[in-house]
Amino acid sequence: MDERIREHARVLVDWSARIDPGDDVVVRVDEGAHDLAVAVAERLGECGANLLSVYDSDEITRAYLRASDGEFTTDPEYALALYERADSVLSLSGSNNTAGSADVPGDRRQAYAKARAGIREARLDTDWVSTQHPTRAMAQQAGMAYEAYEDFVYDATLRDWEALAEEQARLKEILDDGSEVQLVADGTDLTMSIADRIAVNSAASVAYDSHNLPSGEVFTAPEATEGVVTFDVPMTVQGRRVRDVELTFEDGVVVDWDAEQGAAVIEEVLSTDEGARRLGELGIGMNRGVDRVTDNILFDEKMGGTVHLALGRAYDACLPDGVAGNDSAVHEDLITTMGDGSRLEVDGAVVQRDGLFRWEDGFER
Amino acid sequence: MDERIREHARVLVDWSARIDPGDDVVVRVDEGAHDLAVAVAERLGECGANLLSVYDSDEITRAYLRASDGEFTTDPEYALALYERADSVLSLSGSNNTAGSADVPGDRRQAYAKARAGIREARLDTDWVSTQHPTRAMAQQAGMAYEAYEDFVYDATLRDWEALAEEQARLKEILDDGSEVQLVADGTDLTMSIADRIAVNSAASVAYDSHNLPSGEVFTAPEATEGVVTFDVPMTVQGRRVRDVELTFEDGVVVDWDAEQGAAVIEEVLSTDEGARRLGELGIGMNRGVDRVTDNILFDEKMGGTVHLALGRAYDACLPDGVAGNDSAVHEDLITTMGDGSRLEVDGAVVQRDGLFRWEDGFER
Repeated sequence: MDERIREHARVLVDWSARIDPGDDVVVRVDEGAHDLAVAVAERLGECGANLLSVYDSDEITRAYLRASDGEFTTDPEYALALYERADSVLSLSGSNNTAGSADVPGDRRQAYAKARAGIREARLDTDWVSTQHPTRAMAQQAGMAYEAYEDFVYDATLRDWEALAEEQARLKEILDDGSEVQLVADGTDLTMSIADRIAVNSAASVAYDSHNLPSGEVFTAPEATEGVVTFDVPMTVQGRRVRDVELTFEDGVVVDWDAEQGAAVIEEVLSTDEGARRLGELGIGMNRGVDRVTDNILFDEKMGGTVHLALGRAYDACLPDGVAGNDSAVHEDLITTMGDGSRLEVDGAVVQRDGLFRWEDGFER
Repeated sequence: MDERIREHARVLVDWSARIDPGDDVVVRVDEGAHDLAVAVAERLGECGANLLSVYDSDEITRAYLRASDGEFTTDPEYALALYERADSVLSLSGSNNTAGSADVPGDRRQAYAKARAGIREARLDTDWVSTQHPTRAMAQQAGMAYEAYEDFVYDATLRDWEALAEEQARLKEILDDGSEVQLVADGTDLTMSIADRIAVNSAASVAYDSHNLPSGEVFTAPEATEGVVTFDVPMTVQGRRVRDVELTFEDGVVVDWDAEQGAAVIEEVLSTDEGARRLGELGIGMNRGVDRVTDNILFDEKMGGTVHLALGRAYDACLPDGVAGNDSAVHEDLITTMGDGSRLEVDGAVVQRDGLFRWEDGFER
């Protein structure tokens, strides 16, 4: 076994999920993530944690959903009981075919997601962490050779997370103290309120309310969004390509939209429910180990010099006690590059210009 | 997809497990059983049943057990809750390496099995069915080419189960009415009491208290075993080869034993607990579609012209209400050929001679 796989498992179990002896851990294993699952099992065994592996296969889900009549039991009790009692859920993605469920009708997928909203909720109430094992399919999606892609994944994942957490703490402080964010970039001029919201220093650990490995972003839950945003980073959403999605917001709600590519899937997302037309997340990428777009949200949204916004559900960690955030069955991220001429302001002060933070070398004062 | 995989899934879901709409189904997927799992998911989708897939990988279990210090939580609540609430558990074996966990110390494996006895119990309380997808590793273990092995598996599995159930009903009636069974064969002269026990017509369906696909046997839970038995069929037990195991019973308990090969694993089995030294099962193979030994208990024990005995746990289905059968954390089957010169008698009447039942052509009266 590549020693980096074991190191990945150690970072996941120790730094990210903070697994303790006796913890009840669900490990969700994608079709191509077997080797990482073996390394994670080894580390969980060393830790004295309990292990139950769920097989999280796109091909199985596709077959099930396509064969179904579209009527689903709401939150089957046995699955709910599993996730409600779990301490941690570690999701190991690693697709063997990123288009593996491309032919599942969107309404079928939506109905299934809606019927399982309680199970999703229970999973998100655990110390969950999502990570990804490098597969050839993911390398292909990135347009990269397999070995080069492995290097990319481990460069982004096996980082000095404590050092990054310290840098991110600066941005968190600015956002926590701020009331309004303005984003200006090519095709984008957007304002959002973040007045009472809490920014998350997403340092790839549940100890930071951060649930992705790799992470490397600071995110919050905006509201009252006004203006236009263009997402120039090409992405795959629910198995289909989207490019240059443009959203227009009034009073927090999407009132107009367009896309160069993938209009159908964006329409499906927007029509999921009421909350799908509002933003659930503003995220600011800070992982400089992610040095290119690889058509993979887990990595792309963390890239230093990008900003992402998610349609749908807000994370509880961004909300003060007693405040309800945006609710939805979906959470779909879209990304825009903060390139030359861009700026990110908080209450009128420039925090990032031309993709560089004001504490970084080269920032134009 | 090979149409026989879909047919296998239909037999499993419809005939064997009798899945109804809304049933909560756990599908346990072995490393090499992916294609069958996809077909089963499709059939469950058509049926309107609920699906949760568990990844049942030997390599994951091996890594976990080897890394552990040998102290395991007793029946972790989250896993217990899943199986206690499930209606059916479909186990799809299909190994990619039948020696995949051969280097796990026996005491580690035993401690793990003991700590999870309640989970096992909960699983056996569902409408569970075990079946197997043909893999190259299983073909190798059988000493067969892959394509020939696929044919073997489907010949044994895709049978006229209703017709076989009728034939087996004859033997069930004889055993239900009988008090004592005597087995005589090369190296074997054994008597067992079956006085108040119930024989199971194992026709590969939960409707017949039968939980294997393929099945094709009639089995019961003997006691008060006396005499000697030699298991001439070579087998793999817990990843290790055993051959010509000889057990001597007095008053139902193994008092002496020997083996040409695999003595260590037999000793481990026998020392698991008190019940591991008593018989939990007498099974009589009746599946004529299984026409050769393939070093695989699921098929070997069903072969027409063989008899198997299991050390350890008895199945509840064989016991009248209020009678406790043999209890153990293990259930290890061993097989003997009923060849020329052999006979199986019930209360002194010959039921099978030279491997042929008395209702079969060629039986010597």
